[in-house]
Amino acid sequence: MVQQQIVRPSAVMKMSPTVVLNAVALVLFLGHGSGGTVVRREYPDVPLDLSMTLDVTLDDRYNCGEGDPQPPNRVDTAERVARLRQEIANYGLDAYIIPTSDAHQNEFVAPADQRRNYISGFSGSSGVAVVTMSQQALWTDGRYFLQADEQLDCHWLLMKSGLPGVPSLMTWLQQVLPTGSRVGADPTLFSAQTWESYALSQAPSIEVVAEETNLVDVIWTDRPPYSTEPAFVLGMEFAGKSWEDKVMEVRGVLSRTNVDALVVTTLDEVAWLLNLRGHDIPYNPVFRSYVLVTNNSVTLYTPADKVTPEVESHLHAGDCATVNCVTIRDYDAILDDLSDLEYDPLVSRILVSLSTASYSIYSAIPSSKSVSGVSTVMLLKAKKNEVEIRGMKNAHVKDAVALCDFLAFMEREVTAGNPWDELSASDKLQQFRAEQEHYFGLSFTTISAFGPNGAVIHYFPEPETNLAIDASSTYVLDSGVQYKDGTTDVTRTLHYGEPTAFQVDAYTRVLKGQLDFAAVVFPVASFISYWNIDILARRNLYEVGLDYRHGTSHGVGMFLFVHEATTTFYEVGEFMSDEPGYYEDGEFGIRLENVVTVVEAETPHVFSGKSLTFEAVTLVPYEPKLINTTMLTRDQCAQMNAYNIKIRDVVGREMVAQGRQDGYEWLLTKTQPLDC
Amino acid sequence: MVQQQIVRPSAVMKMSPTVVLNAVALVLFLGHGSGGTVVRREYPDVPLDLSMTLDVTLDDRYNCGEGDPQPPNRVDTAERVARLRQEIANYGLDAYIIPTSDAHQNEFVAPADQRRNYISGFSGSSGVAVVTMSQQALWTDGRYFLQADEQLDCHWLLMKSGLPGVPSLMTWLQQVLPTGSRVGADPTLFSAQTWESYALSQAPSIEVVAEETNLVDVIWTDRPPYSTEPAFVLGMEFAGKSWEDKVMEVRGVLSRTNVDALVVTTLDEVAWLLNLRGHDIPYNPVFRSYVLVTNNSVTLYTPADKVTPEVESHLHAGDCATVNCVTIRDYDAILDDLSDLEYDPLVSRILVSLSTASYSIYSAIPSSKSVSGVSTVMLLKAKKNEVEIRGMKNAHVKDAVALCDFLAFMEREVTAGNPWDELSASDKLQQFRAEQEHYFGLSFTTISAFGPNGAVIHYFPEPETNLAIDASSTYVLDSGVQYKDGTTDVTRTLHYGEPTAFQVDAYTRVLKGQLDFAAVVFPVASFISYWNIDILARRNLYEVGLDYRHGTSHGVGMFLFVHEATTTFYEVGEFMSDEPGYYEDGEFGIRLENVVTVVEAETPHVFSGKSLTFEAVTLVPYEPKLINTTMLTRDQCAQMNAYNIKIRDVVGREMVAQGRQDGYEWLLTKTQPLDC
Repeated sequence: MVQQQIVRPSAVMKMSPTVVLNAVALVLFLGHGSGGTVVRREYPDVPLDLSMTLDVTLDDRYNCGEGDPQPPNRVDTAERVARLRQEIANYGLDAYIIPTSDAHQNEFVAPADQRRNYISGFSGSSGVAVVTMSQQALWTDGRYFLQADEQLDCHWLLMKSGLPGVPSLMTWLQQVLPTGSRVGADPTLFSAQTWESYALSQAPSIEVVAEETNLVDVIWTDRPPYSTEPAFVLGMEFAGKSWEDKVMEVRGVLSRTNVDALVVTTLDEVAWLLNLRGHDIPYNPVFRSYVLVTNNSVTLYTPADKVTPEVESHLHAGDCATVNCVTIRDYDAILDDLSDLEYDPLVSRILVSLSTASYSIYSAIPSSKSVSGVSTVMLLKAKKNEVEIRGMKNAHVKDAVALCDFLAFMEREVTAGNPWDELSASDKLQQFRAEQEHYFGLSFTTISAFGPNGAVIHYFPEPETNLAIDASSTYVLDSGVQYKDGTTDVTRTLHYGEPTAFQVDAYTRVLKGQLDFAAVVFPVASFISYWNIDILARRNLYEVGLDYRHGTSHGVGMFLFVHEATTTFYEVGEFMSDEPGYYEDGEFGIRLENVVTVVEAETPHVFSGKSLTFEAVTLVPYEPKLINTTMLTRDQCAQMNAYNIKIRDVVGREMVAQGRQDGYEWLLTKTQPLDC
Repeated sequence: MVQQQIVRPSAVMKMSPTVVLNAVALVLFLGHGSGGTVVRREYPDVPLDLSMTLDVTLDDRYNCGEGDPQPPNRVDTAERVARLRQEIANYGLDAYIIPTSDAHQNEFVAPADQRRNYISGFSGSSGVAVVTMSQQALWTDGRYFLQADEQLDCHWLLMKSGLPGVPSLMTWLQQVLPTGSRVGADPTLFSAQTWESYALSQAPSIEVVAEETNLVDVIWTDRPPYSTEPAFVLGMEFAGKSWEDKVMEVRGVLSRTNVDALVVTTLDEVAWLLNLRGHDIPYNPVFRSYVLVTNNSVTLYTPADKVTPEVESHLHAGDCATVNCVTIRDYDAILDDLSDLEYDPLVSRILVSLSTASYSIYSAIPSSKSVSGVSTVMLLKAKKNEVEIRGMKNAHVKDAVALCDFLAFMEREVTAGNPWDELSASDKLQQFRAEQEHYFGLSFTTISAFGPNGAVIHYFPEPETNLAIDASSTYVLDSGVQYKDGTTDVTRTLHYGEPTAFQVDAYTRVLKGQLDFAAVVFPVASFISYWNIDILARRNLYEVGLDYRHGTSHGVGMFLFVHEATTTFYEVGEFMSDEPGYYEDGEFGIRLENVVTVVEAETPHVFSGKSLTFEAVTLVPYEPKLINTTMLTRDQCAQMNAYNIKIRDVVGREMVAQGRQDGYEWLLTKTQPLDC
């Protein structure tokens, strides 16, 4: 007998509070009333046999025994950490937390904000360091387990987040610090959500202290300055919609939910909303800024050096009498302006996203007026408009032309025995790409990873780790570009010799997962989200006991972030990656990544409204010698052949037009119809 | 470039509060401090184009036009509703909410508790009725849209929960009632969670009033009494573990999370914990009761007529000096006892499940000591012990023998042209089953549904709707038994003539989904839950624009509830259904349901710990003429053939042992190897 179809967790997010409470057992309730914070911790549904936390020790570290050779990329941070300890003591603290992020919760941060990198030596994009008076520990996720173990010196504990039993940061602090200890942290660098979670979990034993002086900055004598480059206007031919129209749309959504003001704190949201771009963050064409939107005003907070006459004119700054205008204020003025909203009779509900606004920003908003939730700008931005969709597709065709041309070149060079390595290859690839129209720069450091380096999920080659590329193993190439008409992100795995049977098996399973993920069709009304379909990418690996320690999909921006926030469930016009992988530690890596976009699907029946599916936007051939075609289903085989035909049609045509004959011939050999 | 593998929502449920807050944007925070209730509504992530609520009207109702013929099972409730309105006015209210459930949030309820059925005429297992002074409305889910539309008279609005735009109960009340209206409800019949969600969503405009007198009981003059049958002891040969050991285990889990007491409110949890069963609820072998477990006491609250000398002796009642004992108190005494815990110095944290305890029970617990969360008994009960696993499997073999014998009989009878209908067939099936060892009764009303009735997902035949079974359409048979060693639940879809191509196509897609769901393999460490794999059951239907409006899987109890609560993610020893379907309104239904159990999987590689998969426990053949074998993948075909071999081996052998030769031959013809 069947049971009611319960609203999926993803859909629950979209529903009324009534449905939320009926449908899910909320594990944790946190009340934040206007008169202060009322906190009530819920009893967690503890897994019965996973409730023990591991005792992570320095003995778990890689090559940290007596006389072990030190990895070339390991950084000795002893002196820095000693100076930080002195400041921790000076400020009356017992420990200090150093997160990766900057004031905007960026994934990539400006050199001036790379404090966690400075103090720990670990250069990955995700991780939190904690220094107590006697210990130091770094938490990071599965993409960086290998890299962190190499880079951290042997005084650092490595906390592998997500593995069963690894204690959370606060759990660990409670274990190692005596009762009454004070843990310092910079409130501008943590999201309000993370900060509140620390406050929640500290129990009575330790106290988290918001320390306004950043202690790393105190000891970081040669800290680089912030960029002084100005912002610039993105034309309508790329943006597709004026900032005035976007602001109007935002206000429309806000008013439907009775909200008067929105605080925009992430840099890609500011850039998208105002059709501006900048140079402040590596790989992210954005500039340091906030925006406050109310029913009758738009205020941009940004350093004065960002503002040019072109920007002022674009925003009609100072011309508010007759047209929509943006008031431009100094970057730091936002805190006072938010506090002053307490006395603004026209503003009674201010929307802020707890997961992206810093605790400083959140604290500045009058608590009686603050309403937390997903940013309206984030939701609107995720669904690309027609000009943006056309631009994204066009950018991916240009990018495929450059990549195919480069891959043809590499195949000739390596099979001819010429010397290439991870660094020279990624430099060469960048040259091919820079030839394409509207090229602006890379969208992230190229992951050019040969052999064992391919198993380091987010490996970026450096001189100390740089390997020669030859015929002995797989070569993982994960790269992307910021074109003014679109951001790209593509991964292919090559092999210039004879792959092992296991490599072919694993590659084919990764490919099957990538195909199945993209081929899924689902009704709009089913509120399908990433959680519901991730299994399609993994199950061919799961079947034989394999897996990969990273997500299968992330949103992709339009000349913005390569990792863009997405809506809770899929909607037409969104772009995201589809990238399963497999990594054999110390041996090799495999990853296949396409960008796909959500489109309407044609179905023979219509049970309940329209259906959706994904369309591949990345059009780059796979490596036939790594595919065991007998492992493909008929559907997967047909899907592969259709994809190859499209590559020939769209990318092949453009290669011919650009006169790239060698690349075109390579493309033809890699897109032969599969016989299955 | 890949993004961090975010902890799945399901896994989040198991994690520390820190992880919860980091990983998900909690849409709704609800604080319940010791000094009262602090509520803060969060801004929902509104789907941009689904935010409008529909205007559901009486014109949407089926056969409610002038002169339309009335369905035979439609119930005229005009007089009852009129009398209820009088009481609503007498009690100073403007509306009254009548839920399906009883004081224990049972799915099936005793005749005395079938108030929603009485007032509305709708007999499904799920739904909420609301009566205002001028309107009346019923909310139900997708399983019951057709049935409710037939049974409700034309004064009732039918609210199809889950369809886009259908208002929630509280949203609707806010739309139709003037500001200041008072909505009455019986606080014993709502879970604390539902009650608090009503409180949350009422805004300032209307008030929900806990009215101690049940207004339906006031007007229900011929309301049946509660059962007076006693409880009875379930032997160790079925239970596998003594109640003393279970209590010790519960206390162990509680102490690890610093909890002193547990309030057990669901009847299957009481029955499981104390190894008792009863006769109070149709199809559910349980008795009306609560249990309070503390570190040094176990108290059973139950009506005096449940307690026999056998029960007293089993529980060592009154022998607390020397052994573990259970104190037996009157059913209603729990409220005072809970209140008195305020003064018990040994009890400082009392665990209660908000989703299963009634608002009355929850309110009786001293708020300063109350901790809400998933019941420890629920979690322990879901993972069956070895005796229970053996019993469950044995019960399913016996049940398969009875069902195969019946299906063989039916096929002969119907193809011979003998007259059978839905009711006579289900009676006959019950006779076959009653012959099996340890038969106790059905686990739910048999869904015996021919042709168009098969499209009514939870159709139970009644004389007014009873259809003859012939060769013209599909016959959906969803049925189950309470054996003392296990609860069964199985669905097969038959066809005694020539199915249409569409029926074969749909049946094959349902079968493919059922096979894929059961075949999935996943690492224990991946915290896979239902949400992650539901797509495997649906995607073959989604692909062509089809779907089914019910869940794919529910937990199954051991001689307890056929719909049992499950843990958040799959663990070895759990039993659940695997039951996709397709329903063509007004035409036919298709559903295939197996019970499966979670077992360890053997995999050639071991990436991160053990893997799990499902083993089919239901062993009943499919209908070959409804399968298009060319649509099966090689894996699906091999899985089918292995399943058929197991049926022959296990069920076939038992049929021969029981001398059921006709059934055995039928089984052989239905389990021929597929050629694919």
